[in-house]
Amino acid sequence: MGIKHGSRDAVRLGELALLAQIRSRTGHSRGTGLRLGIGDDCALLRLKAGEELAVTTDLSIAGRHFRLDWHQPEAIGHRVLARGLSDLAAMGARPAAAFLSLGLPRELTVATGRRPAWVERFYDGLLALAENHKTALAGGDLAESPIAVADIVLVGAVRQGRVLLRSGAQIGDLLYVTGALGGAAAGLARLAEIAGPPSTGKVSLRPPRIPRALESALAAHFFPQPRIAQGLWLVRHKLASAALDLSDGLSTDLAHLCEESGVAAEVDAAALPVADGANPMQALNGGEDYELLFTAPATARLPRSISGVPVTRIGRIVRPRRGRPQVTLVGARGAEPLVPLGWEHFS
Amino acid sequence: MGIKHGSRDAVRLGELALLAQIRSRTGHSRGTGLRLGIGDDCALLRLKAGEELAVTTDLSIAGRHFRLDWHQPEAIGHRVLARGLSDLAAMGARPAAAFLSLGLPRELTVATGRRPAWVERFYDGLLALAENHKTALAGGDLAESPIAVADIVLVGAVRQGRVLLRSGAQIGDLLYVTGALGGAAAGLARLAEIAGPPSTGKVSLRPPRIPRALESALAAHFFPQPRIAQGLWLVRHKLASAALDLSDGLSTDLAHLCEESGVAAEVDAAALPVADGANPMQALNGGEDYELLFTAPATARLPRSISGVPVTRIGRIVRPRRGRPQVTLVGARGAEPLVPLGWEHFS
Repeated sequence: MGIKHGSRDAVRLGELALLAQIRSRTGHSRGTGLRLGIGDDCALLRLKAGEELAVTTDLSIAGRHFRLDWHQPEAIGHRVLARGLSDLAAMGARPAAAFLSLGLPRELTVATGRRPAWVERFYDGLLALAENHKTALAGGDLAESPIAVADIVLVGAVRQGRVLLRSGAQIGDLLYVTGALGGAAAGLARLAEIAGPPSTGKVSLRPPRIPRALESALAAHFFPQPRIAQGLWLVRHKLASAALDLSDGLSTDLAHLCEESGVAAEVDAAALPVADGANPMQALNGGEDYELLFTAPATARLPRSISGVPVTRIGRIVRPRRGRPQVTLVGARGAEPLVPLGWEHFS
Repeated sequence: MGIKHGSRDAVRLGELALLAQIRSRTGHSRGTGLRLGIGDDCALLRLKAGEELAVTTDLSIAGRHFRLDWHQPEAIGHRVLARGLSDLAAMGARPAAAFLSLGLPRELTVATGRRPAWVERFYDGLLALAENHKTALAGGDLAESPIAVADIVLVGAVRQGRVLLRSGAQIGDLLYVTGALGGAAAGLARLAEIAGPPSTGKVSLRPPRIPRALESALAAHFFPQPRIAQGLWLVRHKLASAALDLSDGLSTDLAHLCEESGVAAEVDAAALPVADGANPMQALNGGEDYELLFTAPATARLPRSISGVPVTRIGRIVRPRRGRPQVTLVGARGAEPLVPLGWEHFS
């Protein structure tokens, strides 16, 4: 490990120059406690006294979590890191370091003429988001692979005993989300229209040209923003009783929270902050928004926004009762069960 | 993250029962500082005061790092974890927790009749080695994938300032290895004979039957033993000046050590501990032995074995000179350059 810069895998990929470049772009410690990055068998980190460690890994696979013929390499790099950062945000952890294991077909590592290699543009997207969140890329692994796979590992730090868990929700707590919901799903639906039907046979490496006018409509899908600052704020102010990030969609993730906390929940349909261009079904079931879903006691005074991102009360935690659905959607037509209809990926 | 036990990926794989089973097998903290394992957005760990964190990731890909038609699932699980543990051993770190991201074709997750699913046997091998080294499997990710991929993450702890680096070798130091060299490469060569030529078209999931008489000859390849106890011993006794693990082969890994330390090295051909059944070329260039290569001052008194594994002096660190090879092999016919001929995987 480290990225073993002289290893056979690296040599095979013709990657020595690329790896040196990555190393030069990622060696900064930035005061995150990173003592030693790429180049030895392991990376070394130090935490501050009284901190504990949060670790998360997320595997992204071409054709399932992203498509080479749909997504710009920068967006894929961004999305890979965003998945991991969002898990830290959900715990209220401060990012300390990221590790990336990357398996790539050879053609994605080769620059053609004046155009940079796919992998360089992938790193551009990943490192730009890492920079935004002061997260060092501290190591990883690199191998040739018949399909593109990327496993991101995030190591974060949180004050002992202050972490936000899924299991802390109490009956009577109120339910909140950050930001708006359904934007990623709506963007994906637009992208599917632009990109057309799946290509057959060998997948093109050329994603479709996105019309300027649609760029902002697709941003929630291409470049979701992990809510690190909001998670840290909730920990600092000791307001939240439980939290998770909306990766699979509200209906699915809220069921997880209820299950881990042993509670039930009611969601007010009219209160849902539906993203511009999204419909209510996308807000309820669309995944990959990476907003935070959290609970707080009814006595807690939540602000309308945290670090510029709106906070909306969308419902409440109630006592679970046999024969009643775990999550209920309360709308104009009365109450109905909110069935988990989690995220459909690309397969 | 965690292994999100209700996630779509898991449901797709028909894995709920399997994940519950994994969770039940891996939730033990074992005093390693693991506070929270599978089930939330991140795993949580605490280190002891004065410890720092070592993190390593290693990506294994079917057809490259293992073959479904050559390796029993238990051996693949063992080898995946051994790669990561060996990186910790090379730093002298104590394993604290492992995380596994696994992408699998659907057929590897399905039990047929009374035969357990491939993935269950994979976990059998991985968890048996984890148990040997008191390492908790604290989380990971799981997704359907057209090819089998496994990314292992190891988090370890080491006393601050006591870590073994590649960069610490000094001119005049002596060069040592643990165990015997070339056994994994010799085993692989035997395996290739037994398995026959690569199958064409769809890869069989049925590895070849290994004759009883050959089992021990193949053990070094199937079940390499990471030298955790030896790395910890070296740190405790403050004897080593530099170390790494032999994953790519002596000729390649020694070049890494020289490069990171800014030194050159001489290896005594006659001193090499060649494994039973291996030839000297396999001992020099064969990878995946996962023995430790380390340096120590000439004044240091090394024992003949550490925790039952032999320690052999194989050469010395010398001043690098322009026009001279970085690593020299000294044999009966005089000195010749030892060119890095690292490990060939299966592709």
